[in-house]
Amino acid sequence: MSGIFYGVGVGPGDSELITVKGVKILQEADIIIAPQTKKEGPSTALNIVRPYLDAKAQVVKLVFPMVDIPEELNESWRLNKEKIDTYLQEGKKVAFITLGDPMLYSTYIYVQRLIKDSGYQVVTVPGITSFSLMAGRLGEALAENDETLVIVPATAGEETLAKALSFADNVVLMKVSRNFRGLVNRLKEQDLLKGAFMVSHCGWENERIYTNLEELAEDTVSYFSTILVKRNK
Amino acid sequence: MSGIFYGVGVGPGDSELITVKGVKILQEADIIIAPQTKKEGPSTALNIVRPYLDAKAQVVKLVFPMVDIPEELNESWRLNKEKIDTYLQEGKKVAFITLGDPMLYSTYIYVQRLIKDSGYQVVTVPGITSFSLMAGRLGEALAENDETLVIVPATAGEETLAKALSFADNVVLMKVSRNFRGLVNRLKEQDLLKGAFMVSHCGWENERIYTNLEELAEDTVSYFSTILVKRNK
Repeated sequence: MSGIFYGVGVGPGDSELITVKGVKILQEADIIIAPQTKKEGPSTALNIVRPYLDAKAQVVKLVFPMVDIPEELNESWRLNKEKIDTYLQEGKKVAFITLGDPMLYSTYIYVQRLIKDSGYQVVTVPGITSFSLMAGRLGEALAENDETLVIVPATAGEETLAKALSFADNVVLMKVSRNFRGLVNRLKEQDLLKGAFMVSHCGWENERIYTNLEELAEDTVSYFSTILVKRNK
Repeated sequence: MSGIFYGVGVGPGDSELITVKGVKILQEADIIIAPQTKKEGPSTALNIVRPYLDAKAQVVKLVFPMVDIPEELNESWRLNKEKIDTYLQEGKKVAFITLGDPMLYSTYIYVQRLIKDSGYQVVTVPGITSFSLMAGRLGEALAENDETLVIVPATAGEETLAKALSFADNVVLMKVSRNFRGLVNRLKEQDLLKGAFMVSHCGWENERIYTNLEELAEDTVSYFSTILVKRNK
């Protein structure tokens, strides 16, 4: 009998923001796959679930590099897929942990596609997104009544950003650290700065909330930052 | 000392899709507020958390009617708010349970605003949205790479719907039962039917996935249905 591949969303950072189902699956899994971008680096997702794992838990770290060289990327993916296949062929329960929600901007999306295409059973357990937590912290709705909400990575290109910001009542901007200054200028241009909030490391011990984005220097903006823009504010 | 007001997102329906933090707060709360739309009706959120409550749990059902008469609405809100205030003044921990995520299309958004304005401490625990669960079930991403995701209620008006569907790579349509036929016609017009999936009662025992929306009769579409539209499908 072949195994089952689980994707478990571990939420934005706080260990208690994983679901009851997620914890159960991690505790029943034979193998826990912790993805990371560098071989020697830490796995944030693994740190989040550590309190739920006992000493016997078999954790396998797999490197999914963030590189632009297709050959290198394809080769690492092929190797990772082969490794997961081996466990599944042995009939093991394999749980892949992933930050936030598995089906939103995650490496897991590609992994589950490959595994499913090989004919294995895949079960995905959703996770809390950083922006859901952020909205609660701010006391600001992501959307209410008939309002629209757009989620857009700040890396999506100028045209897409301009459209998103002129269309929606509420906009969540992800990956804002790379072009922070350009983003702030755009918000200013579109008269949206007064309804813009940024939270860094939401749910972590070093969480910070910023309400005056114009004052922030670009090099102080963490990779783990998200902006919520509310038009009617 | 005054109490604390907690908002706990209980997720889309499956009792195990609440967070560990949510369960903890419900078990430590003095009062659990279960909102419902009718006095005699069931509270879906209460059914979800029932397995975590012991026999001594003090559950208070409050009716938040879905009516269009402002006087009736205002009066019921004033009474509900007064009731919650009484508990908070007694120093109690009051947990308000709400389906899905508290800060997205929820009565809780207004309640927490009123409570915060009265000077009480408010703590919001995020919840799993129906569309995160749905995407996992379908094995389809909500968004990947630099794609955009729009969340829009089908009740938002024709112009907004047309814009959302022509702008975004991925669209989640909420509250689709009211104008289902019109929605399907619009998806057909904008050539998006082949990338449209609907899930009803996602996470419940009677969950159903539909891939051919054109064949469905409007009167069979449940209130608890969500559509995911993927442009590049």
